Amino acid sequence: MGSGTRLVSFVGGQAGAWRVEAATTIAGAALPAVTAIDAIEAGEPPAGTWTLRGVVSHARYTHAREQSELRARQAGLGRPEATRAALIPIRKSAAWWDLAHDERRAIFEERSHHIAGTLKYLPAIARRLHHGRDLGEPFDFLTWFEFTPADMPLFDELVAMLRATEEWRYVEREIDLRLYRS
Amino acid sequence: MGSGTRLVSFVGGQAGAWRVEAATTIAGAALPAVTAIDAIEAGEPPAGTWTLRGVVSHARYTHAREQSELRARQAGLGRPEATRAALIPIRKSAAWWDLAHDERRAIFEERSHHIAGTLKYLPAIARRLHHGRDLGEPFDFLTWFEFTPADMPLFDELVAMLRATEEWRYVEREIDLRLYRS
Repeated sequence: MGSGTRLVSFVGGQAGAWRVEAATTIAGAALPAVTAIDAIEAGEPPAGTWTLRGVVSHARYTHAREQSELRARQAGLGRPEATRAALIPIRKSAAWWDLAHDERRAIFEERSHHIAGTLKYLPAIARRLHHGRDLGEPFDFLTWFEFTPADMPLFDELVAMLRATEEWRYVEREIDLRLYRS
Repeated sequence: MGSGTRLVSFVGGQAGAWRVEAATTIAGAALPAVTAIDAIEAGEPPAGTWTLRGVVSHARYTHAREQSELRARQAGLGRPEATRAALIPIRKSAAWWDLAHDERRAIFEERSHHIAGTLKYLPAIARRLHHGRDLGEPFDFLTWFEFTPADMPLFDELVAMLRATEEWRYVEREIDLRLYRS
């Protein structure tokens, strides 16, 4: 195995560390309903209703200045007070992936402010991105968020802001799973 | 399965469509010796001495102007006269992957001219890149090249040019396999 990337399997089923509070299909086909989700980072994941896989890997658009600002401000996963979570799997369209890198960066940041616009939600909303596209997974990205119950309205604001961007016109499938620690 | 990416398995062993003419370890650990290589694009790959996997995916650094120039000039794989090939697996260092995207792009193109400097080798040298990093493979990239016997010196010039770049200081493992159609 190579080093530097880490495979995470999100298993949806009837038991797990996180209970599903709400599951909303924002775009495209729904996922089968589940009542709990586990994030498995080592060993063979248990069988579930579905398993979504992604890799924690290097950032694809972030510039140096942005990277140091993000690293200085973001919180890690696993804060005891962060008892709420969200898992948002998305797939972008073929039109997105056909764009050259500078075109994707311009839409992502210069016009949609994906990084600059979300800095204000740090460190309240902790976040980890998992890449699934090169694995042949049904979703290109699985983003996992953790926050306190008090920050739930802030999280709603964050996702509403992103969904209104030009970048989101390229999202053809999106599921929004809201979770609480069981 | 998601669409838009394609998994290719390179199987090294005792039989296959391409015979190994030379195998040179440029940096890092060697690969076990094999006499032939097959590129398997569908179905379960046969057992071999080793199997290296990578995904044909979107370009990570190419700008729009470069992408249209590349698309206009490059040849596809499988030209009958292109009876020579090379498979060059490389892994880059953790220091490379820790860089922000704009820093990697500056080294890759603005300072190492990876795209601009290789345009002159098109269409003579056909090329396809396979990404292995997110698969947890031992190599980040597997590049497959095809060319005519007459263009072998041109190919030598291309790899020598790339190995002299600043970008290549981040290459910590590299194997150079030269092949001919069997």
